[in-house]
Amino acid sequence: MAVYTEVTDDALAEFLELYEIGRLVAFRGIAEGVENSNFSLRTTDGDFILTLYEKRVDPADLPWFLGLMEHLAAKSLPCPLPVRARDGANLNKLAGKIAAITTFLPGIWPRRPAVAHCAPLGEALARLHLAGADYAPTRANALGPEGWRPLFARCAGSADTVQAGLGAALDASLDAILAAWPDNLPRGHIHADLFPDNVFFLDGKISGLIDFYFAATDLYAYDIAVCLNAWCFENDFSFNITKSRALLRGYQSVRPLAEAERATLPVLCQGAAIRFLLTRLYDWINTPDGALVTRKDPLAYWRRLRFHAQARSEGDYGL
Amino acid sequence: MAVYTEVTDDALAEFLELYEIGRLVAFRGIAEGVENSNFSLRTTDGDFILTLYEKRVDPADLPWFLGLMEHLAAKSLPCPLPVRARDGANLNKLAGKIAAITTFLPGIWPRRPAVAHCAPLGEALARLHLAGADYAPTRANALGPEGWRPLFARCAGSADTVQAGLGAALDASLDAILAAWPDNLPRGHIHADLFPDNVFFLDGKISGLIDFYFAATDLYAYDIAVCLNAWCFENDFSFNITKSRALLRGYQSVRPLAEAERATLPVLCQGAAIRFLLTRLYDWINTPDGALVTRKDPLAYWRRLRFHAQARSEGDYGL
Repeated sequence: MAVYTEVTDDALAEFLELYEIGRLVAFRGIAEGVENSNFSLRTTDGDFILTLYEKRVDPADLPWFLGLMEHLAAKSLPCPLPVRARDGANLNKLAGKIAAITTFLPGIWPRRPAVAHCAPLGEALARLHLAGADYAPTRANALGPEGWRPLFARCAGSADTVQAGLGAALDASLDAILAAWPDNLPRGHIHADLFPDNVFFLDGKISGLIDFYFAATDLYAYDIAVCLNAWCFENDFSFNITKSRALLRGYQSVRPLAEAERATLPVLCQGAAIRFLLTRLYDWINTPDGALVTRKDPLAYWRRLRFHAQARSEGDYGL
Repeated sequence: MAVYTEVTDDALAEFLELYEIGRLVAFRGIAEGVENSNFSLRTTDGDFILTLYEKRVDPADLPWFLGLMEHLAAKSLPCPLPVRARDGANLNKLAGKIAAITTFLPGIWPRRPAVAHCAPLGEALARLHLAGADYAPTRANALGPEGWRPLFARCAGSADTVQAGLGAALDASLDAILAAWPDNLPRGHIHADLFPDNVFFLDGKISGLIDFYFAATDLYAYDIAVCLNAWCFENDFSFNITKSRALLRGYQSVRPLAEAERATLPVLCQGAAIRFLLTRLYDWINTPDGALVTRKDPLAYWRRLRFHAQARSEGDYGL
């Protein structure tokens, strides 16, 4: 469910007056997405996505996100291009929320990621990293390693209600991961949330990378670790090294990894696993029973974390 | 939330092979709708809606619904046209559900119905009634007057948990409505659920009538009564007679009402109010707390029912 805010006809008509994108033809809520309200918008000029930013996004971050998207789109990365209003603004108000119009991207996201998706994904991720390199503004990663301890502190007390012993196990894992965390790897702007539902494919090629609202400035290789977690585990939590190898090779065909990036893959992957584990755990504990949002099981990332904790080297990821 | 069933890429690709509608370009879940899973589907041939029928729709009824839509579309009513597969079938299986592809209709549904919407709505409803007259198959209205007592019996015991005294009040209302129910009015195929979210407008004109999955063979004037309930009350439950007059005049500009239809508007409107009250009451009591569907307040229809119960004649509706 990704329509949290009702947009009235009058408000929409008034909002569209701010833009030079023709007259309204169709307007439907989009079911996908969790954080914001998204609508598909058709005008006499073409197709667009209208996003209303809901409370989880800090308005102060929006210019950075939209600037990054504009920068990447200008470098031919297939990401949504924010449409500027007649006055040049790419953010405006609608129904009491900050809103943006972006271009529509064709394609569908893979419900069942296959090996064939992983090489194009790796290539696209590396292209994203290279294309973003000269986008000057930075954004600290609130959900990066500095954020994990404070986030854990907010849900540690309830961790054992999800699984007996989980609190102590997470505490120990966090200690180990943070102690081993590399701080001298190549850095830049990362997507930080490139899950399958944020990647559109068309005829076997990537046609869209969307949802840049967790993007931040952090380790490139950490972004790869997020993807390894998101794309390379099967439903039974077994790790598919063929997918992982394809993803890493695709990435390296565009941006070869430094020795230190390859060597630290196991701890980077543990960090990525614990990041999603912690936000899921937090949401699990804090989502009211009657809420419209489906809670995602934090233990799916506990299983991933355990895999990465026993990995010894890049070889365990197919390199 | 209107995506209950996940459709995998492979299953979708295989399904689309059954049709001659070009290659897949985009596929997104649609947030609107409650009963079924709906997706917007773009192919190289154009835009379509893909519907997966969920458990509330009886598969045995689907050929009747789709046949009616095909019949109405052939008479230029702006309703979705079911697309036939290469073998001529308009229903096929996808992701374990029965599924249909229909044409895409432009426009947006009015979030705040205004007087200006009501005359076109009335006209369109009358056109729907006339266009359907020579569609031979019939479908009994399971949610028509014969269905109200059995439905009430399934939730009467819990009615007082919604509002003290509601059970006895509904019992008495049902007796009065059923005793006064007219049985000699003009009959034919009715939409039976023409709420604002099922009516698209474009540039002030109706561009789409959708969601025929409550359609049935019943009194034409009862369909008008559903619309009067759905379109003519303000948020404070006051009845807007200007809207009602516009709706009825619009209807009569296409299909003049018989004297008996006009005279029985108050009881028909009570019937329509109690029909939605009962299904909402049933859902209210039977929807689990953690469900993804927003429960609609049954008391909104109790307020409407009280208005109609004090109406004396067609004059109370602006005629």
